[in-house]
Amino acid sequence: MTGTAARRESQRERLIDAAERAIAEKGLAGLKARELAREIGCSLGAIYNLVADMDELILRVGSRTLARLDAALSAAPKPAASQAEAVEALVAVALAYSAFARENLRLWRVLFEHRMAEGAVMPDWAVSEQMTLFRHILGPLRLLAPERDEEERNLLGRTLFSAVHGVVAIGLEEKLVAVPRRALDRQIEELVRLACRGLAAGA
Amino acid sequence: MTGTAARRESQRERLIDAAERAIAEKGLAGLKARELAREIGCSLGAIYNLVADMDELILRVGSRTLARLDAALSAAPKPAASQAEAVEALVAVALAYSAFARENLRLWRVLFEHRMAEGAVMPDWAVSEQMTLFRHILGPLRLLAPERDEEERNLLGRTLFSAVHGVVAIGLEEKLVAVPRRALDRQIEELVRLACRGLAAGA
Repeated sequence: MTGTAARRESQRERLIDAAERAIAEKGLAGLKARELAREIGCSLGAIYNLVADMDELILRVGSRTLARLDAALSAAPKPAASQAEAVEALVAVALAYSAFARENLRLWRVLFEHRMAEGAVMPDWAVSEQMTLFRHILGPLRLLAPERDEEERNLLGRTLFSAVHGVVAIGLEEKLVAVPRRALDRQIEELVRLACRGLAAGA
Repeated sequence: MTGTAARRESQRERLIDAAERAIAEKGLAGLKARELAREIGCSLGAIYNLVADMDELILRVGSRTLARLDAALSAAPKPAASQAEAVEALVAVALAYSAFARENLRLWRVLFEHRMAEGAVMPDWAVSEQMTLFRHILGPLRLLAPERDEEERNLLGRTLFSAVHGVVAIGLEEKLVAVPRRALDRQIEELVRLACRGLAAGA
């Protein structure tokens, strides 16, 4: 890397740092290009030498959030060797997902709330980062639904992820009475166990 | 009602109409008090004689959305008399929920995306309107989980609603590849049947 490229890369990292802090503190609405420029000591226009647009900046922050989520989910379960262990692994992953969401509430919300500018398409690197997280579910599902082909199992994995996500998202919303952590954990665990029992009963 | 009160009420309805149209077309970000005032022919300040603040206006629009959702869910299932019918009723309610969300995408999203101004609390009437919709789930659940007490069944109802909501919300999101209607319906139906089979197996 030349000196110029290295300087640019380091300024880009500082821009992403600043955006990450702003989102963590104030959510997406708190992300102002002008304030970020001031914070990293460049002009407003110079930001767009570092990222193509605000969409890319938000996706770069999301990329870090996904990497930390991936690490949190990886820490949760031991590899499962039996169906019973696979159920426990799915419960553990779901609870780890919920804990991560609670502890990173605004950054986690942005993963779902951010919509690309009209007509813009999410870049491949961002899509593939999201997809790689499904392995935490698909591993145990291979044991729990061995009769399904890969496409069906992928769809089932997406369904279960979305279902757990829904319980977490509504449970953490302060709009209705927010659910206390222990009650939310019970809901999540019950949902996963119900679905797993349903899988076993239907097999 | 005096003439003045009737005029005020009719202007309030027109304000809510205008806000509803704006949200349906452009989402929450498209809701501008100034434009609404222009549309109903009053001054910006006069809006706040009709509603306390924008939060109230958004909740009033949400109230209409919930009433239409309630009607859509009521049209879906026949009353269930057996456990098998209760499963079909839950599947029908879940699919009706998904269809409503798809057909009222922006208005439906606002029910969940809108957050009250910092420190403000959702008024009781709005909370109780949301709660009344749970009867569509709790009726069938009484047949499917008769051994649970009411509190446990309410929590289970909330869990199942949140799970279906999650599948619908992520399925309708254009961010990842949006799921075609038939595939989404399959996901929803599978989730509900899995949970019901899990309930039956665990009883």
